[in-house]
Amino acid sequence: MIREQLKEAKKACRFMQNVKPEVKNKALKNISEALIQKSELIIQENQKDIAEAKNNGIKESMVDRLLLNKERIEAMAKDILKVIDLQDPIGTLVREIKRPNGLVIQQIKIPLGVIGVIYESRPNVTVDIASLCIKTNNVCVLKGGKEAIHSNRILVQIINEAIQDVLPAHTVTLIETKKREETLDLIQAHDYVDVIIPRGSAGLIQYVVKNATVPVIETGAGICHLYVDQEANLDMALEIAKNAKIQRPSVCNAIETILVHQKVAPEFLPKLQEIFKNVQIYGDEKTRKIIDCLEATEKNYATEYDDYICNIKVVDDIEEAIEHIYNYSTKHSESIITENKETAKYFMESLDSACVYHNASTRFSDGGEFGFGAEVGISTQKLHARGPLGLQEITSTKYMIYGNGQVRS
Amino acid sequence: MIREQLKEAKKACRFMQNVKPEVKNKALKNISEALIQKSELIIQENQKDIAEAKNNGIKESMVDRLLLNKERIEAMAKDILKVIDLQDPIGTLVREIKRPNGLVIQQIKIPLGVIGVIYESRPNVTVDIASLCIKTNNVCVLKGGKEAIHSNRILVQIINEAIQDVLPAHTVTLIETKKREETLDLIQAHDYVDVIIPRGSAGLIQYVVKNATVPVIETGAGICHLYVDQEANLDMALEIAKNAKIQRPSVCNAIETILVHQKVAPEFLPKLQEIFKNVQIYGDEKTRKIIDCLEATEKNYATEYDDYICNIKVVDDIEEAIEHIYNYSTKHSESIITENKETAKYFMESLDSACVYHNASTRFSDGGEFGFGAEVGISTQKLHARGPLGLQEITSTKYMIYGNGQVRS
Repeated sequence: MIREQLKEAKKACRFMQNVKPEVKNKALKNISEALIQKSELIIQENQKDIAEAKNNGIKESMVDRLLLNKERIEAMAKDILKVIDLQDPIGTLVREIKRPNGLVIQQIKIPLGVIGVIYESRPNVTVDIASLCIKTNNVCVLKGGKEAIHSNRILVQIINEAIQDVLPAHTVTLIETKKREETLDLIQAHDYVDVIIPRGSAGLIQYVVKNATVPVIETGAGICHLYVDQEANLDMALEIAKNAKIQRPSVCNAIETILVHQKVAPEFLPKLQEIFKNVQIYGDEKTRKIIDCLEATEKNYATEYDDYICNIKVVDDIEEAIEHIYNYSTKHSESIITENKETAKYFMESLDSACVYHNASTRFSDGGEFGFGAEVGISTQKLHARGPLGLQEITSTKYMIYGNGQVRS
Repeated sequence: MIREQLKEAKKACRFMQNVKPEVKNKALKNISEALIQKSELIIQENQKDIAEAKNNGIKESMVDRLLLNKERIEAMAKDILKVIDLQDPIGTLVREIKRPNGLVIQQIKIPLGVIGVIYESRPNVTVDIASLCIKTNNVCVLKGGKEAIHSNRILVQIINEAIQDVLPAHTVTLIETKKREETLDLIQAHDYVDVIIPRGSAGLIQYVVKNATVPVIETGAGICHLYVDQEANLDMALEIAKNAKIQRPSVCNAIETILVHQKVAPEFLPKLQEIFKNVQIYGDEKTRKIIDCLEATEKNYATEYDDYICNIKVVDDIEEAIEHIYNYSTKHSESIITENKETAKYFMESLDSACVYHNASTRFSDGGEFGFGAEVGISTQKLHARGPLGLQEITSTKYMIYGNGQVRS
């Protein structure tokens, strides 16, 4: 049954190729209005998920992530209107090559095709992804978590009613699978799906990477680093350390390890400890000579805590900091704090992480903060796209080649 | 043992980040000169592969693909000099975003990292890939076919001697595997390899797609189409059909099926049959009313012949042509022959194949013909890169973000 749904999605692709910007924007406007009109219905269905979550004893913060109320529905509806105003990448010229034989080769941005997204909890992701996909002529197949099934069902139903007179059928599909084998059907549907984007737990992402035959964009693994250089403004370093670790520790762009140059460690670490009162600190030997904390092991450096826990390591020089980051980073985001521009340049050029910051918090690695409107996820692989996945990142290209009878000799 | 080699390759990545253009070009020049100087040694080793191939009764055309002689070695050496002159994508600015909070976000082209290439037969591919990777600061891990093992060994040895004083160690690695499980080690080395590019038989590519956990760029599957419109210049259509089918049928950018508008079929098909004397033709019912040929089945339309065999189908209109291409194309290359620019535009915009031609042969889908110098392969997937893979296509990007103390609120 899932294969039938995917087959229909693939068919929809063909007709989405020719859909013009004004039609896409009309569809988005319709969805935005429908969400407002039907907010009571959405809240009613969402309450079923909330009740089940509470029955299952799910913790309060997770229940809150699931919740849709009037304000949150209005925010979703507004976000869709913002997507309408974003620059449309489809059909834009990437480059033009003129060949000596007279051929003119134009590389043009086109949709990726069928985008499968597997995600957990927050139901607003359903609307975010559907709207970014519609804006880029993509077809999406959404597999949300079972904890949000009533919310996702009603949201996709509302979306489909809102676009039915405007866009091809099966442009937005919700897949309901209960067994792992059915997820396999999705991630191995090589003929029907162009890319799979898993969002959620490390376990989910690893399962998809291991078992997919459809190309995957990996997202979200975030062991991020802050390096406090010998020429850092230490007040700035403290503010940024606080923001990057504590402001919202549960997200992937929060830091897990702070590397501190030996020359500033004696001054910096006690101050840091003061603002990290509610943070469990693991330090290396040199750190533990300066402040009192637990002993950091290899395992600590390789763990994404997503919690009020932080590793601290004192390094001899920038080379040791770079070496450490190469060994443990998931290549998501790293930041250097220094007043020396040459040092910053060296750090930023030497690393190959998706986002490398100078004198700023890693917490800015986010589609909204980059000005992308919304995001489908944050890529942590090198292939296709890096960092926040906005409209540009869910496109492919094709070559349109104009001749007047050329044949190859 | 392979995992040890891959670990070293990953280490080399870090040091390749900082290698400057003049250093890369010096390395390429050294390789080019060394190939000429050591051409006798190369020929001597290559003869071992040739002898084994003959012993194993491999067909003449395949033996010829393996052969390295003085002229071919000189051509390889010259091709490397051409790569030196190509525009270097690394470090170039893709886009700059200035945010209201003062952050400046620069998206910069960087190497992909470790590129694993699995390929068969022609040993010049070894030199092509190594030089494109060096030019783009990438590290490559090459797994050539066992039929070319002596040639590949000596070529990689010469490359490594030529670059040893210039580039980091392990920038170019040859992997020798005899068992399938060892290939598995390569394509599942998720921690060490950033992308796998399989080049060769459909069986090889499918094996890699099925079993890899490293991201894959699929290459080479080519069921390409030619559509002869009702407003086609039929002489041009004949020339292009001939070129696209017969000039070199064994390659992926040759066509397998010709779709002919019903209005021109009675005039076009007999002429086509005349120039297709050595081509086995499979036609649909309407075609068989006009010319004598075998009956085409679903299976024919879905087969990549790579041979003097061609399907012909008469279509009612352009919609039927597009529908057929959507059903059977591997999304490599398609061409329309028409004098009507609006018709051409509609055809080219409706399809999502990597290369869509107007009045030209599909045989131009090639890195050299596109002006890319050489190619690592031809991508037939939507993710990351499409069509010929040149220097631009073996890069990734990172964001370099400049602040002055910004934290997220």
